[in-house]
Amino acid sequence: MKISHRAVSIQESPIRKLAPLAAAARNRGTTIYHLNIGQPDVATPPEFLRAVASFKDKVLEYGPSDGLPELREAMSAYFARYEIALDPREILIANGGSEAIHFAFNVVADEGEEIIIPEPFYTNYNGYAEMANLKVVPVRTHAEDGFHLPPDGVLDGAVTPRTRAILICSPNNPTGTVLNWEELERLAAFVERHDLFLIADEVYKEFTYDGRRHRSVLELPGVRERVIVVDSISKRFSACGARVGAVISRNREVMASVLKFGQARLCPPTLEQLGAIAAYKLDESYFEAVRAEYQRRRDVMYGALMRDPGIVLKRPRGAFYMIVKMTGVEDSDDFARWLLEEFEHGGDTVMVAPAGGFYATPDAGKDEVRMAYVLEVAKLERAMEVFLAGLERYRAARPAAAHAV
Amino acid sequence: MKISHRAVSIQESPIRKLAPLAAAARNRGTTIYHLNIGQPDVATPPEFLRAVASFKDKVLEYGPSDGLPELREAMSAYFARYEIALDPREILIANGGSEAIHFAFNVVADEGEEIIIPEPFYTNYNGYAEMANLKVVPVRTHAEDGFHLPPDGVLDGAVTPRTRAILICSPNNPTGTVLNWEELERLAAFVERHDLFLIADEVYKEFTYDGRRHRSVLELPGVRERVIVVDSISKRFSACGARVGAVISRNREVMASVLKFGQARLCPPTLEQLGAIAAYKLDESYFEAVRAEYQRRRDVMYGALMRDPGIVLKRPRGAFYMIVKMTGVEDSDDFARWLLEEFEHGGDTVMVAPAGGFYATPDAGKDEVRMAYVLEVAKLERAMEVFLAGLERYRAARPAAAHAV
Repeated sequence: MKISHRAVSIQESPIRKLAPLAAAARNRGTTIYHLNIGQPDVATPPEFLRAVASFKDKVLEYGPSDGLPELREAMSAYFARYEIALDPREILIANGGSEAIHFAFNVVADEGEEIIIPEPFYTNYNGYAEMANLKVVPVRTHAEDGFHLPPDGVLDGAVTPRTRAILICSPNNPTGTVLNWEELERLAAFVERHDLFLIADEVYKEFTYDGRRHRSVLELPGVRERVIVVDSISKRFSACGARVGAVISRNREVMASVLKFGQARLCPPTLEQLGAIAAYKLDESYFEAVRAEYQRRRDVMYGALMRDPGIVLKRPRGAFYMIVKMTGVEDSDDFARWLLEEFEHGGDTVMVAPAGGFYATPDAGKDEVRMAYVLEVAKLERAMEVFLAGLERYRAARPAAAHAV
Repeated sequence: MKISHRAVSIQESPIRKLAPLAAAARNRGTTIYHLNIGQPDVATPPEFLRAVASFKDKVLEYGPSDGLPELREAMSAYFARYEIALDPREILIANGGSEAIHFAFNVVADEGEEIIIPEPFYTNYNGYAEMANLKVVPVRTHAEDGFHLPPDGVLDGAVTPRTRAILICSPNNPTGTVLNWEELERLAAFVERHDLFLIADEVYKEFTYDGRRHRSVLELPGVRERVIVVDSISKRFSACGARVGAVISRNREVMASVLKFGQARLCPPTLEQLGAIAAYKLDESYFEAVRAEYQRRRDVMYGALMRDPGIVLKRPRGAFYMIVKMTGVEDSDDFARWLLEEFEHGGDTVMVAPAGGFYATPDAGKDEVRMAYVLEVAKLERAMEVFLAGLERYRAARPAAAHAV
């Protein structure tokens, strides 16, 4: 009566290991600034919550397996604003972006097959790959060039006869990198060259800064049948607890198969789809305000980090994360633990996510942490002051680290 | 760029094939009584919807991956009423019973391993087995003995070195059969004998009739570490669209693994968990009224069917389904289609679910249909009149059927 190998080997959330240390610090009276989590503090639109509360049916019945038609139509209208034409039948509502990943993996690959993912990447891809018995093949990206795509030769070198797809995330969690149009065109050529699917996680698409507009893989003309987009309202409308995502594809065979997976789980949550319909009807000014706020925060975090000459970081252009590479830190697990256990600065400390968990390559990312800027500016300024002081103190406290393995 | 084998081979919902025929009948002006679906018409408790509407937080944040603590505590208190002691940590909230099945399958078995399921069974088990690359091994149960468990020899004969678990559903969808305590004890001995997990889908546990109390596998003393219960509020509180289910187990390793799967999808829907908390605080009289109503309907359907001497059916004791075996019907797909396309009785017809889709054994169940009694009594009486007239007319219309293969 052993549990399955996949249950044993599935990765534990890399951030949760630190939770007991954070609790202990709080119990000592230390204030912790959480730079470790991606939970936005932006208000969920009141229109969302009002629409949920307006439900007046007698019975909360099963909804359609592909989601409420009104929601798929509202999404179609939403994408049309960005000049992306989508038929509502090209959209299936999922239980969050998570289930969209799950369905996308299952539709493109069978057990033992491979999906290429540029690393560092969102850790939960690992969990779904594990459940679907797929192998994640990482291709390394680097802090020095802002975590942009590696050269074609590196991508081509990762392909084997078992490769079925490449998965990209742009704007990226955990790096904040936004792929440019030339990169998307290179990806299109790559999936054509090797006959692969192109899966794109675009759940942060509204979060791009410096006046740059997000370009979607749905805009790529030559690979319409190859593209599958993973989408979600969690960040778009600050509704993480709603669990409303979507799988988007113009490939009819993909959508027919995804619908069968969807039928197996009956339907996505009805009430929170009602909220999503209302949110999708908000006009563009909603995003402008949110985007301006996040850009301010990005500037605060990036500006502060640039004061430390030992930090390697290109200005991230989207989402609300950065992967911060630090000279003098050789084990960011130890650094994150040390910040919670041994450090405080005027009664405060910070919690960061060691980046190792975001890499599939063993021992990669050990000199990096992920930081999220989901705190309001005043708190973020203080958090950065504490972080920089902590980094300086850590380097002094671990002088041997420079020579240790 | 082929889609995966699993996407191709996953079973389409066996009921959906009939949907276009039903639409055509409706367009001709025929009234269709739906005996094919399991969507209860009982009102969702107003307490549920009020609790959802009372959400006043500014941000709809991610909830805990194992569900809201208040919900797990409310469920623990609920089970205590039935003298089942559960620590809240032995309960993980899932995105519906569907995700609970998904997690249970993934935790007990790896790709290529086997799960024994008495057939006929709920079709969606197939979808999750397919996604987890598991093989469903059916053991046949029969209308003649009310679809109770087969003898030990039959169960033992289904075990191979790759068997990891047996999955039972009681009260059963699609048969309405409630396993008795002796059967549960036989199952306990069976899983002990072969070192297996015992997965029990008990989502209909409140729906038992004739004064009989449901017994849970959680009450079995000797196999506490082997038992995993799949649970849901969909039928319990007539909240199918809520997607709030649970995995329940006293096996700590199982729960730790299920939590890791849960972390990969972040959290179940928050608002609908708030509704569930309120619903779990309803007192027992809520169920008494619902149970009495369903028992009346069961009596109407069963009483009507007994008027046809060619029907093989033992009085079902739970849930709200029956598998109805009919002499003179050799292809219930054809019968169900015929009812929609070629038959009407005073302007009315009925829609039933051919039972073949509930069997894993090819060609099994071809003389059976599943009927659900989720219509109010007056409508159900008329529906049964129409069904019996249709059955009689079909037998006359297909006289060769008795000799055809």
